[in-house]
Amino acid sequence: MINDFIYDIPVRVYFGRDQLRHLSAELKKYGQRVLMPYGGGSVKRTGLYDRIVKEIREAGLELFELGGIEPNPRIDSVRKGAQMCKQHHIDVLLAVGGGSVIDATKFMAAGACVDFDPWDFLDYGKKVTVEKALPIVDILTLAATGSEMDCGGVITNPETKDKNGMMYPPLLPKASFLDPTNTFTVSAYQTACGAADMMSHIIEVYFNMNQDLYMLDCFMEGLMKTIIRYAPVAMKNPEDYEARANLMWAGSWAINGFVNGGKQQAWSCHPMEHELSAIYDITHGLGLAILTPRWMEYCLDETTVAKYVQFGINVFGLDPSAAPMETARLAIERLGDFLFNTLGLKRTFPEVGIDRQHFSLMARKAVGGATLPGFKTLGQHDVEAIFEMCMK
Amino acid sequence: MINDFIYDIPVRVYFGRDQLRHLSAELKKYGQRVLMPYGGGSVKRTGLYDRIVKEIREAGLELFELGGIEPNPRIDSVRKGAQMCKQHHIDVLLAVGGGSVIDATKFMAAGACVDFDPWDFLDYGKKVTVEKALPIVDILTLAATGSEMDCGGVITNPETKDKNGMMYPPLLPKASFLDPTNTFTVSAYQTACGAADMMSHIIEVYFNMNQDLYMLDCFMEGLMKTIIRYAPVAMKNPEDYEARANLMWAGSWAINGFVNGGKQQAWSCHPMEHELSAIYDITHGLGLAILTPRWMEYCLDETTVAKYVQFGINVFGLDPSAAPMETARLAIERLGDFLFNTLGLKRTFPEVGIDRQHFSLMARKAVGGATLPGFKTLGQHDVEAIFEMCMK
Repeated sequence: MINDFIYDIPVRVYFGRDQLRHLSAELKKYGQRVLMPYGGGSVKRTGLYDRIVKEIREAGLELFELGGIEPNPRIDSVRKGAQMCKQHHIDVLLAVGGGSVIDATKFMAAGACVDFDPWDFLDYGKKVTVEKALPIVDILTLAATGSEMDCGGVITNPETKDKNGMMYPPLLPKASFLDPTNTFTVSAYQTACGAADMMSHIIEVYFNMNQDLYMLDCFMEGLMKTIIRYAPVAMKNPEDYEARANLMWAGSWAINGFVNGGKQQAWSCHPMEHELSAIYDITHGLGLAILTPRWMEYCLDETTVAKYVQFGINVFGLDPSAAPMETARLAIERLGDFLFNTLGLKRTFPEVGIDRQHFSLMARKAVGGATLPGFKTLGQHDVEAIFEMCMK
Repeated sequence: MINDFIYDIPVRVYFGRDQLRHLSAELKKYGQRVLMPYGGGSVKRTGLYDRIVKEIREAGLELFELGGIEPNPRIDSVRKGAQMCKQHHIDVLLAVGGGSVIDATKFMAAGACVDFDPWDFLDYGKKVTVEKALPIVDILTLAATGSEMDCGGVITNPETKDKNGMMYPPLLPKASFLDPTNTFTVSAYQTACGAADMMSHIIEVYFNMNQDLYMLDCFMEGLMKTIIRYAPVAMKNPEDYEARANLMWAGSWAINGFVNGGKQQAWSCHPMEHELSAIYDITHGLGLAILTPRWMEYCLDETTVAKYVQFGINVFGLDPSAAPMETARLAIERLGDFLFNTLGLKRTFPEVGIDRQHFSLMARKAVGGATLPGFKTLGQHDVEAIFEMCMK
C-alpha cells in the first residue's frame, strides 16, 4: 500500500566551497538584525566565525551573538535566544553549527513569536503547536542530524529529564549553507557518531510498517552505501572533500522527508535513544549505534525477514541465493561490524556507563505510556528487553 | 571534481489518489481567474476534466479553457495562451496534461507578462530571458518529461523548423498534482516512450563530463532500475498503481535537477533528438530510444569505459569480474534489449520514416554551429555518424 503524501521541501541549499558570498543576500531578504547562535569554540578555531562576521558586517547587517549552545541543547538556551530575539527585535536567525545549534535555533525562532515558555512547544502533553517563527538560515558544520533540511528539533529539559523532539513546518530553514570543508575539523569519533545517526535515520524508515515506493528503497540503499563507503574515508583522511561532501549531502537526504513518501511509518530507535541521552547525556549517534542492531534482532521473525534480506543483498552485497533467515542474521552482523569495528563505536551499555537502574523508567517514557507503533509494535517490556540486549 | 551547486526546488507536490481536494486552495493563493490549457480529448474521456471543472467551479473560481495543445507543442498555441492571459486578466494557469501541455503553459505564463512574441524566449540567438511569469499549477497525466518539477520547456516553431528548449527559474510550477491513477489510461506505446524519455534524462547526466557525487550515482542507478522494473508492468497492467506510482515519481526526479548536483554536464541525445522531431514530428521518447544506445556505442573508448562498467554492474547486475570493454558492450546491449524488446520501441530510423535527406542540416543545428560539449564533445560529423548508426 502506497499512501498519498505531500512533498514540500522549499529549503534553498548552497552546497560547496565558495558559497558564503551568498550569505548576506540571503539574510537581507528577511531584514537587518541577525541573531547568530553557535556552539563551542570550534567555529572560532577554524576561522569560520571570522569569515561569517566579516561577511555580515561588510553587508551592513547588525549582528547579535549567542555562543555556547550545548550538544543535546537545553531548553534554557532556547529561552535565552527567544528572549534576545524579542529584546533586540531580531529579523532573522543564523545558526552556525551542527544539529544541536540548528535545533535550538528553531525553537528560539518560534519562542520569539509567543509570550509563553518555548518548552510548551515540546511538552507532549500540552499540544501547543508552532504557528509562526522568525526565518532561519544555517551554516552546517557537522553532517549528522539533517536538521538543516527538516522542520524538526530535539531539546532537552534537565529539570524534567525529558528530551523531546517535535516537527513544525514553520521551523524549516529558509536556506542552508553546506560547505563540506566546514566539516574537515570534525573528529574521527564525531564523524563516526554522525554516520551512525544518519544510518539510523534511514533504517528507521526503511524498516517500517508497509512497503515503500521501490524507487525510494533504492535511494535509501544508495544513501546507506554512501555512508558505509565514505565514513571510514573521512575518519582516516578528514580533509577528503569527496568523502565529506557525500556524507554531508547524504545526511540531509536521509531525513528531509523525501524517503518517507507514501509510507506509513513511526520510528523506534530514536524514541528509545532520546531516553538514554536525556539521563546519561551520551552522544545521540552513539546511543543509536548501540540500540539499532539489537532492535533489528528483536524484530526479526518470519513476518519481517524479507526486508532484512533486501537490506543485506542491496546494501552489503550478500548472496541472494542463501536462506532468508541466514541472510537476515548476516545482514545484522554486517551492520554491527560497520558500527562497532569500522566506525569503532562502543558496542554495549556498560562501556558507555549505562546500567539497569533506569531501564524501567526509560522504557516507559520511550513508549509514551502506551506502545511504539513502528516496524514491530513495542510495549514497555519489549523496550526493556532491547535495553537488556545492549548490556553485553 | 565536485563543483559547487545550489539546490532549490520549491515545487509543492501532491502525490496520490485523493489530492484534488487541495486544488482550489492552491489556485486561490494566486487569485480568482484561472486559465486551463489541456491537450486532446483524453482528459474528457477519463472524467478528469469534469472532476477538475467541478472542483474549480464549486470553489467559486473563474475558469477559462484552452484545449487542443498538441504533442510537441507549437509556438502558436503559446501565443494564443499568452494572449488569453492578457485579455482575461488571468491570475494563475492550470496545465492539465503531460509534458507538452505543461511546457506550453510555462511559456504562456511568461508571454503573458511581456509585450513581445514569446518565441523570443526560445530563440537561441536573441538571449531574451524570462524575468517574470504568471504562477503555474499542473495536473500531470503522463509520466515522462519531468516538466512538473523543473523550470524548462521545449517548443516547436514549424515556420523555422526549430524545436528549442530553455529553462528559466520563474517557470517552475508552484504546485504539481501527481495522481498515478491519471496515467492508468496511458497506452502501452506512450508508456514505453515515456520510460525511454526518463531513461534518457538520467543517462544524459550519468554519462557526462566529470564524476558525480557517489550518492547521486546510486540514486540515478536506482531510478533506472525503477523504470526498467515497472515500465513493462505498467504496459501489461495499465492500472497497476505501484508501477504507475513508481514511474511517475521517478520521472519527476530524473530531471528536477537533484541528480545534477556538483556535476559539470551538458546533454547530447536531447539536442540531437529535438532536431529529429522538429522535422519528422516523431514522439520525443521514441527518438531518444533510437539515438541513445548508438550514442553510447559511439562514445565508448578506453577513457570512458569505466562509467559503462559501473552502469552495467549496478543497473543490469552484470558480472563485475568480466573484462571492462566486454561489460561495457554488454551493458549497451542490455539497454537496447530493454528499449527495443521489452518496451517494443522501433529500433531504426527507417522504421520510423527517417532517411538521410536532412542528416546534415539536423546535425548542424544539433551542434548549434559549433560542438556539443557532453560526455564526449561531438562535432557535426560525429552527430552525422551517430545518425548513420541509427539507419540499421
